[in-house]
Amino acid sequence: MNEVPNEGVTRTLARYVVGAQPADIPDAVTHEARRALLHWLGCSLGGCRHEAVEAALATFGEFSGPREATVLGRGESVDILLAALLNGISADVLGFSDTHLKTVIHAGGVIGPAVLALAERTRVSGKDFLHAFLLGIEVACRVGLAVYPWHYARGWHITGTAGTFGAAAAAGKLLGLNEQRMTWALGIAATQAAGLREMFGSMCKSLHGGRAAQNGLSAALLAHNGFTSSESAIEAPRGFAHVLGESPNLTAITAGLGVTFEVSQNTYKPFPCGVVIHPVIDGCIALKAAHAFAAADIRRVALRVHPLVLELCGRKTPATTFEAKLSVYHSAAASILKGRMTEQEYAVAIVSNHEVVAVRDKVVATADAAIREEEADVMIEFADGKTLHHHVDYATGSTQRPMSDADIETKFRGLATPVLTAAKIEQLIDACWSITQTDDAAVLARLAAAQI
Amino acid sequence: MNEVPNEGVTRTLARYVVGAQPADIPDAVTHEARRALLHWLGCSLGGCRHEAVEAALATFGEFSGPREATVLGRGESVDILLAALLNGISADVLGFSDTHLKTVIHAGGVIGPAVLALAERTRVSGKDFLHAFLLGIEVACRVGLAVYPWHYARGWHITGTAGTFGAAAAAGKLLGLNEQRMTWALGIAATQAAGLREMFGSMCKSLHGGRAAQNGLSAALLAHNGFTSSESAIEAPRGFAHVLGESPNLTAITAGLGVTFEVSQNTYKPFPCGVVIHPVIDGCIALKAAHAFAAADIRRVALRVHPLVLELCGRKTPATTFEAKLSVYHSAAASILKGRMTEQEYAVAIVSNHEVVAVRDKVVATADAAIREEEADVMIEFADGKTLHHHVDYATGSTQRPMSDADIETKFRGLATPVLTAAKIEQLIDACWSITQTDDAAVLARLAAAQI
Repeated sequence: MNEVPNEGVTRTLARYVVGAQPADIPDAVTHEARRALLHWLGCSLGGCRHEAVEAALATFGEFSGPREATVLGRGESVDILLAALLNGISADVLGFSDTHLKTVIHAGGVIGPAVLALAERTRVSGKDFLHAFLLGIEVACRVGLAVYPWHYARGWHITGTAGTFGAAAAAGKLLGLNEQRMTWALGIAATQAAGLREMFGSMCKSLHGGRAAQNGLSAALLAHNGFTSSESAIEAPRGFAHVLGESPNLTAITAGLGVTFEVSQNTYKPFPCGVVIHPVIDGCIALKAAHAFAAADIRRVALRVHPLVLELCGRKTPATTFEAKLSVYHSAAASILKGRMTEQEYAVAIVSNHEVVAVRDKVVATADAAIREEEADVMIEFADGKTLHHHVDYATGSTQRPMSDADIETKFRGLATPVLTAAKIEQLIDACWSITQTDDAAVLARLAAAQI
Repeated sequence: MNEVPNEGVTRTLARYVVGAQPADIPDAVTHEARRALLHWLGCSLGGCRHEAVEAALATFGEFSGPREATVLGRGESVDILLAALLNGISADVLGFSDTHLKTVIHAGGVIGPAVLALAERTRVSGKDFLHAFLLGIEVACRVGLAVYPWHYARGWHITGTAGTFGAAAAAGKLLGLNEQRMTWALGIAATQAAGLREMFGSMCKSLHGGRAAQNGLSAALLAHNGFTSSESAIEAPRGFAHVLGESPNLTAITAGLGVTFEVSQNTYKPFPCGVVIHPVIDGCIALKAAHAFAAADIRRVALRVHPLVLELCGRKTPATTFEAKLSVYHSAAASILKGRMTEQEYAVAIVSNHEVVAVRDKVVATADAAIREEEADVMIEFADGKTLHHHVDYATGSTQRPMSDADIETKFRGLATPVLTAAKIEQLIDACWSITQTDDAAVLARLAAAQI
């Protein structure tokens, strides 16, 4: 894409989003967007009953306007702005989001809620919907790249800040904004961008993604109605990149625009726990899948792990879900017994289950500086002297071994099972893979509404 | 107020707000809060038909929930969160707000909309209402003092950022939050604080105050429902003061808390134009008030002014309202002819009025380095050789000569006249002066709703 000389990056970005066509997106990139979409829906379904969602719904539900949009996984309908907020909160609360590793932005769970809410109000084809979703991720990640790493190190929760631009661009694309109004939408997003890392550990951490979705959608709606902003909101001396960044790399916003796509760099976590114990879980699941054995026959589980595993996740006798997610011992035991590691295997009932605890007490983990972070060695020794061994070179979800479509489906099923019927779950998976064939993207929301 | 050792300023501030009692506020301070209240209502009434308000209402009106609150000066009712937004926008759009000179925060127009919206939903006495309003101003200004001037120089619109804390504290006080929840409310405010100075000159400039009111009110409502945040949101290394400030002065937040009151430092602008031409307008109005003369007899108007007046406001032939506000020539002519200088005297019809233009062309302004910024010398020479002379030492609204209650009433009448009947205007003025005697503060909103 050729840039007009002396034009600011805000306008260049706006013009690109306005002019972009679905046909210009390579198939592999479009498919990555489908994966991000399915993955986000799973995260929101999994998080929809979290206390942060309950508190936000209890607060804002009574102020809802026309109830045109779905709170994913739940029976309630709310206005589209509130739906964007709530589905953005639920997307984040399990800490299980997609991650653009170059910026640590969790884009899918911000852009998705904004565009899905809009699609419930105004009919939009699946092709246009997925394209807007993809463009929103692109904008969020490129704005993030301009200010990362200083921005994040300073204390900004980049998903909340950069995410607002992405939600505005995606919603603005669906609204058909022209270049002038898309420029304003990005400016209105810029001046609402917020979210402090200090909030990590509290419900506010998830508020950031929700507000980014809601404020980005608001920005697009305001611009659609002629609400004006600065037209160089990102690059101006008192604009976003210089106020919330330091010596920003503005070129990152426009370099290769329309040629390279940041969604291709998106990654997904297979297990809802500290990423350092993922290789161990991979090895345990592999052994369980390949062999038949009885838990009672296990004498010892010997793990060799990167030293960081014991530093960060060395809790031997976890009692709560939170503690279990920081325990390589529970994680190994539960994954050997259950053959999977989803939110359910971190429920308190499983954490305190006597069979799980019995195996957990037989786990011995040894830190080994020769083991890489993505690597682990798992050996199960049985009472009769037999052993099973599996060595994991690269954990699932690492850059070297990304989650397959089937892996994302499995994760999705684990997250959706508590709130949707098995039939709805399979329909929703199919609807995501075939999203570009539907003439009404809101089908996703209808399938993801829980039965009441 | 004694601080618990090692306690953070966020909690100290929360505890103060929770424990503060109306009886602890000196009468003069309470009266300053009444002045700020009346002044804000005037600004919102004057701005209520501005295109920024129209665009925001056109955007969000259809998403309104229960229509329990008043859009000041207009016929529409909207939900309380939207009312806080719209009345916060209207408060700012004329650039006529109250100013806390030490931080350039326009607090009244942020805190007022938040507490009035809440008072329309839940009955609250005038005494408690005014106290909450005053506490909100206190919190906004103290948080602002902690980060000013670096924060503003960096590019943050401090009314938008610090204002959010004030609105949260004021709304939280009316909701009766306990110390824990007030601490969360301040944290939820901190992580939504936003607004870039780059937006000055666009509608987004006024969005900042509106969002501060709305987000602060949201923060209090969320905290009321148990939504959690960091408990050291202001002072933590990745909290508000260190991320949006540099080497913040945290002591400013707690020093003299409950003893000195920042609302006492609030100032008000008498005229809706560049502050540097205020002394000239003062002089012209004084001459018009003291003498009877015919415009046709004027031969020359000779002004001696501070050099900055001609630098900033030297437009000789303004055509638009915006240009006229930057013209000492129009401002002198119109104030000599009309004896006042309100928004109406900057309307295009007056700017191009032949009688005004005739006098304007006779104005000669001379820059004089011996004249201070708050000073001006005005001489009117008539065809018959007579002269009238007035020297202004300190303009009305300066620290040395603050606006009197009568001045604020006059400004209020000028702003409210286009939207309210004369009877309603006088009732509203009375209601503000006697606010602590009513058992229902929402009377202000009912009086400030336009007849439809």
